[in-house]
Amino acid sequence: MVALNLLEKRAGYLNTGTWSDKAIKEAKIYDDIYEVASSKSANFNYIPKGYDIPEDYDYFHCTSNNTIFGTQMKSFPNSPIPMVCDMSSDIFSRQLDFSQFDIIYAGAQKNMGPAGTTLVVVKEDVLGKVSRKIPSMMDYKVHIGKGSMFNTPPVFAVYVSMLTMQWLKDKGGIKAIEEENEKKARLIYSEIDLNPLFKGFAVKEDRSNMNATFTLENENLKETFDAMWKEAGINGLNGHRSVGGYRASMYNALSLDSVKVLVEVMSDLESKA
Amino acid sequence: MVALNLLEKRAGYLNTGTWSDKAIKEAKIYDDIYEVASSKSANFNYIPKGYDIPEDYDYFHCTSNNTIFGTQMKSFPNSPIPMVCDMSSDIFSRQLDFSQFDIIYAGAQKNMGPAGTTLVVVKEDVLGKVSRKIPSMMDYKVHIGKGSMFNTPPVFAVYVSMLTMQWLKDKGGIKAIEEENEKKARLIYSEIDLNPLFKGFAVKEDRSNMNATFTLENENLKETFDAMWKEAGINGLNGHRSVGGYRASMYNALSLDSVKVLVEVMSDLESKA
Repeated sequence: MVALNLLEKRAGYLNTGTWSDKAIKEAKIYDDIYEVASSKSANFNYIPKGYDIPEDYDYFHCTSNNTIFGTQMKSFPNSPIPMVCDMSSDIFSRQLDFSQFDIIYAGAQKNMGPAGTTLVVVKEDVLGKVSRKIPSMMDYKVHIGKGSMFNTPPVFAVYVSMLTMQWLKDKGGIKAIEEENEKKARLIYSEIDLNPLFKGFAVKEDRSNMNATFTLENENLKETFDAMWKEAGINGLNGHRSVGGYRASMYNALSLDSVKVLVEVMSDLESKA
Repeated sequence: MVALNLLEKRAGYLNTGTWSDKAIKEAKIYDDIYEVASSKSANFNYIPKGYDIPEDYDYFHCTSNNTIFGTQMKSFPNSPIPMVCDMSSDIFSRQLDFSQFDIIYAGAQKNMGPAGTTLVVVKEDVLGKVSRKIPSMMDYKVHIGKGSMFNTPPVFAVYVSMLTMQWLKDKGGIKAIEEENEKKARLIYSEIDLNPLFKGFAVKEDRSNMNATFTLENENLKETFDAMWKEAGINGLNGHRSVGGYRASMYNALSLDSVKVLVEVMSDLESKA
C-alpha cells in the first residue's frame, strides 16, 4: 500500500528480515527497489547501520522490530527523504520521536488490539505525488478524506483497540510501559547471557525488547527443557523455523511475572544439567 | 477488487443504485465500463430487466439487493459471460442457484457477522486472465493460495460469523430463514399497501425482502408518526436522504415480532388520523 501511494521512481528499503523482505517483494510489483542495506548474509541477526539513503529516491522504508529474528532498531537514520516505518510489532512499546516518520503503519494484533485493523499515521504532504491510478481501498487519501470510514469499519477491533489504549493510559502511558518492557527484556537477556546452557541469537546491541530469540548450546537438553517450560504453563516458546531454538515474545500485555516464570525454568535447567 | 482481478478489456455493469454506482466508479479506474441497464432516471425504484449482456465482455456485474432504494433482484440474467454479484445485503437470506455466479462477494455486516470481514466465493477459472500486476492484498489468487490466511485474519469477525452460520443451521438453514423473511416482508408490505397514509417507494415486483422503503402520503403526520415509532422502541427507521421517508431493514436477525410492532404503530396512526 505504501508503494502504491508513494513509489514513482525508486525507493530504498532496509532489509532486516522477513517483514522487510515481504515489503520489498510487494513494492517490486511497481518499480525497482534498492536495498540500502541488508543483514541477510548473517541470517538477519543484526540491524545494519551506517548506510546511505539516496537523496533522489521517493522514500526510505524500514521495519522497527523483527519478530522472527528478535532484532529491533534502537535508533533511526536521519533520512533525507520521507521515512516510512512498519511498527506492527513494537508500536506503543517505547518512547520515540514519532515526528521523524512520514508514514507509520502497524497491524493492531501485537500491542494495540485484536487482529482485523491497522493503525496508519500519515504526513499528508507525502501523498498525491504518484502518477498511477490507485484503487480506492488502497488509497490513503481516500481513507483520510472519509475520516477512516470509507468502508464500514471493523468496529469490534477498533473498539477493543480503544480499550487497550485506555488501559495503557491508566498504566502511565508509553513511558511506564517502556520501563516495564525494559525490565522484562533485561531479565530474560541476563539469564540468556549468564546461563551457560543458552545462547542469544541476535547481536546484543540490536536485541529486541519484544521478542527474545535464543538457542540451547546442547541440543540433547531440548526434550528436558521443552517438558519443563510446558509444565510451567508457558506457551508458544518455539522459535520460528528460520532461526530454530526459542523465542520469548514479550508484548505490552505480558507481565514481568510471566518472564520470571521462564527465567526460573531456564535457571532450574542449569541446576539439573 | 473485482475489476483489478477480471477487467482486461471491458465489463458490463447493471446499475441499480448507490452500491452498483460505487462499483462502476471503482472499475472505471481500470477501463471503460458499459452500463448494460440503469434505473437511475427513476431514482432506482425498480430493477431493469430485458437488457442484453455483450458476449465479448470480460464479465457482468450486478448487486442483488439495494439497501437504500429497497429493491432486490428476484431473478438473475442468463449471462453469456462470467457473472459477478455483490450480495452484501442479502446473502444467506434466500435460496438461490448459487452455481450461476462466478464470483459472489459479501461484506459480513448484514446477515453474516460483525463488520470487519468479507465472504468471497470464486470459480477459480475466471482468474489469471488480466495482464496487469495486482497488489497481493487485492489478488484473489494470493488469498486462495494461502487458504484465506495471507494476512493475519480478523479472527473475532470470522469466529462470530461461524457462530451466526451455526445459528442459521440450527434454525433450519436458508430455507427456513427464507420463509421467515417472506413472512416479515409480506406483513410490512401489506400494511404499506392497505394503509392509505403510506406509499411504497420501490415498484411492487422488485421490492426487497431485506429493506422496505416507504413514505408518508401526508408530510404533516411526520412528527406524530416519528414520536410513535420511537415510543415503541423502534430504531433507525429514517430513510436514506436520497429517498427520504422511511426504511425498515429486516435482516435475518430481525424477528417477525419486531416487524409486528412497526405494523401496529402504522395501523395506530391510521386510527388516530
